[in-house]
Amino acid sequence: MMKLSRSLLRSRKLSSDKLFAGKADDVGDALWSKSYSSLASLSTARQNAGAKGRVFAPYSVYKGKAALSVDPVLPTFAKLDSGDLRVQRKGVIMLTFWPAIGERKYDWARKQHFGLSPTEVGSLISMGPKESSEFFHDPSMLSSNAGQVRKSLSIKALADGNGYFVSLNVVNNLLKTTERFVVPVTTAEFTVMKTACSFALPHLMGWDQLTNPLPVASNKSSSKVDRESFDLEWER
Amino acid sequence: MMKLSRSLLRSRKLSSDKLFAGKADDVGDALWSKSYSSLASLSTARQNAGAKGRVFAPYSVYKGKAALSVDPVLPTFAKLDSGDLRVQRKGVIMLTFWPAIGERKYDWARKQHFGLSPTEVGSLISMGPKESSEFFHDPSMLSSNAGQVRKSLSIKALADGNGYFVSLNVVNNLLKTTERFVVPVTTAEFTVMKTACSFALPHLMGWDQLTNPLPVASNKSSSKVDRESFDLEWER
Amino acid sequence: MMKLSRSLLRSRKLSSDKLFAGKADDVGDALWSKSYSSLASLSTARQNAGAKGRVFAPYSVYKGKAALSVDPVLPTFAKLDSGDLRVQRKGVIMLTFWPAIGERKYDWARKQHFGLSPTEVGSLISMGPKESSEFFHDPSMLSSNAGQVRKSLSIKALADGNGYFVSLNVVNNLLKTTERFVVPVTTAEFTVMKTACSFALPHLMGWDQLTNPLPVASNKSSSKVDRESFDLEWER
Amino acid sequence: MMKLSRSLLRSRKLSSDKLFAGKADDVGDALWSKSYSSLASLSTARQNAGAKGRVFAPYSVYKGKAALSVDPVLPTFAKLDSGDLRVQRKGVIMLTFWPAIGERKYDWARKQHFGLSPTEVGSLISMGPKESSEFFHDPSMLSSNAGQVRKSLSIKALADGNGYFVSLNVVNNLLKTTERFVVPVTTAEFTVMKTACSFALPHLMGWDQLTNPLPVASNKSSSKVDRESFDLEWER
Repeated sequence: MMKLSRSLLRSRKLSSDKLFAGKADDVGDALWSKSYSSLASLSTARQNAGAKGRVFAPYSVYKGKAALSVDPVLPTFAKLDSGDLRVQRKGVIMLTFWPAIGERKYDWARKQHFGLSPTEVGSLISMGPKESSEFFHDPSMLSSNAGQVRKSLSIKALADGNGYFVSLNVVNNLLKTTERFVVPVTTAEFTVMKTACSFALPHLMGWDQLTNPLPVASNKSSSKVDRESFDLEWER
Repeated sequence: MMKLSRSLLRSRKLSSDKLFAGKADDVGDALWSKSYSSLASLSTARQNAGAKGRVFAPYSVYKGKAALSVDPVLPTFAKLDSGDLRVQRKGVIMLTFWPAIGERKYDWARKQHFGLSPTEVGSLISMGPKESSEFFHDPSMLSSNAGQVRKSLSIKALADGNGYFVSLNVVNNLLKTTERFVVPVTTAEFTVMKTACSFALPHLMGWDQLTNPLPVASNKSSSKVDRESFDLEWER
Repeated sequence: MMKLSRSLLRSRKLSSDKLFAGKADDVGDALWSKSYSSLASLSTARQNAGAKGRVFAPYSVYKGKAALSVDPVLPTFAKLDSGDLRVQRKGVIMLTFWPAIGERKYDWARKQHFGLSPTEVGSLISMGPKESSEFFHDPSMLSSNAGQVRKSLSIKALADGNGYFVSLNVVNNLLKTTERFVVPVTTAEFTVMKTACSFALPHLMGWDQLTNPLPVASNKSSSKVDRESFDLEWER
Repeated sequence: MMKLSRSLLRSRKLSSDKLFAGKADDVGDALWSKSYSSLASLSTARQNAGAKGRVFAPYSVYKGKAALSVDPVLPTFAKLDSGDLRVQRKGVIMLTFWPAIGERKYDWARKQHFGLSPTEVGSLISMGPKESSEFFHDPSMLSSNAGQVRKSLSIKALADGNGYFVSLNVVNNLLKTTERFVVPVTTAEFTVMKTACSFALPHLMGWDQLTNPLPVASNKSSSKVDRESFDLEWER
């Protein structure tokens, strides 16, 4: 905690000019990187994203009672005996909530995460202007602590269809705490989230690996395989 | 068969930790790679996808009676005398069904494939919440066995518009077998499939080859060609 | 002409196996490459698409009276004195029609082109299931032959909303010829065209050049420029 | 100014053939590069886009009273102490208006910019055929000149739903000037803008950095982190 707040000051200095502008945005972004360095496994995918290191590009909205950040986390891959790769851990859209503690001040130390799986992303991007969704996670689902921490995310359309209430509830029986964050999101902001999540979805699934160097057909395929593969290319 | 089941055990060991978690997902993924290595021609495109080898990133849903996987297969290209390339075999979205044989147990050995052509993908991604589609394939269409195996894929909207029944029927007169798989798919899961298939479609067609190094106009074009090519650039 | 028909035979040989299969698709594809080599300026963009040479990946539909191919043509760029580049000739979606001359036989020599500009593509991809569009081109618009050749493309929704009639009219006063092609297109096929054209559109405009190596801010910006550029980043 | 008009003449020469064709398009494009070279910080992102230098690919529409260009500007990134990067200045969609001064003549020197933030882009791409939007910017918001210059962008749907009026109002109390640009935009042109902006949005946010070399999971994650990261991959 002490450590966090120190890094917090450092971050503030980093973007002090922006702070004079009363721009909270960059605080979040700066803190963000801190939070990640304490979540090594989250950023594994990026860690390996080549020489350029990790990239932090959260989409953040700051409202009266809390802030909400949306950030993609890439999948990880495992090498098979064959030398091929398969998706080991699917990517997620990481939602992070942290509370307001005053005029344009937010307490990043009290942040809570909620990672949307590809299917949950599918549910979000298919929401109409009048629809609502709710998701439940148990972070310790398969451990001895199963059931001790319950997270629920709710996305409720506003009556007038001009936005949503996005709220996260975290009940922690171990720490005997209950936290609730509510962030009103405009249609414009939700459209950014939907568009960016639709863009990210194939990447979370590992399908962006489709964009590879130009493949050329090998000729080493037995006639049996040819027959079997024919229906693949058959067009009606 | 013996061979397959042996590899099956190997795969289980591979992701045993996940299995304790009662997570069927990874069984499918692991087996997947096996199935592909026995379908060389399927994965030709990936085989040539550069040093990194093939990548397996199926989107799988596990339901009571069967599991369904959705996976893109890239097109293959043929070199022309000119040194240019043209699409030889179009890519497909490979659907794979395999039956449940108990609580969270699925029999990959009894899998059946159905490869959606670009046009069939177009039909899938244009489906409304109340619409249904049906596709028919004859894997041996042009061989002496034509008509011996008939596959039909049906996507039926649920009455309440909250999902689809995806079912595959395979009638094999050679083996005297009839197999039927039915997988209920939620709106969220179907949205993932539609979004991922829309992303994949240009790749199946080979259009992702558009994203190439920055082209620069050559000056070697005769005036005749210039005139002919003018209407290309003409904007109304 | 003689030359063309010779190459035509060569092409047929190339994919003769496919022809036995009565698959017209590959004839078009094979001929396609020929047609392009006689349209150097069309394929400039691809010609320069790096070591891999040009890539031919048309989406073709073969119907009773004619065939229709849809194929993206990339923009070309011109170097400025500054060393920067700007789009010189915008890309187009090239539509090619050629007539049927018998059972699964099509006469590529009588093909006609119609190149959709980015704005015309915008019109196509915004068409609803009941809407229709019409486009007019004069290939020699700015030459002495202006008005001598008139091309009109019409996309008419079917009464039942299950597809479109795509037809091209070419009136050539120089050759005293009038040609008309009509190709019925299903909703599935039109969805492929719309999805692929939406994917291609930013590339035709040159916007795919956005996906470049990770940029890092330079510190060489005068305060004046800073102030002016501030509103760029300002978020409301 | 003198300098600008000289470069203006050079540009005209550059695309004189086009000008005979009465094609204003290329004037804008040519001038564009000029305008940018006087906005170094705008094009920082492109400046660093690798060896190939900056790329200018505006989408321009020329109407009776004014012209409008739409052009993406990439975000800039800052290096953190950790060596990682975070978005420093988000990208924008730069709208540029300049007035007509005669038949197919436009005065680039009197151009005005309006940079749409990601959230404003979200608002634009979610507009229905009957909807309207309005945006307000104060370029000097945080300087001593705050409030001296007020820009408002209005996008008004036409009564018949077949397009929009896009207008920019700039009230400058320092120069005692008021400028107004009105550009009617067809549905086709607006569709191009929406499609291209949707494509660009993830890039403006820095999310295109997702498309990186194939990541592989590291094994250096403590069990604590494992537990914490588990809910990330958990699929319901």
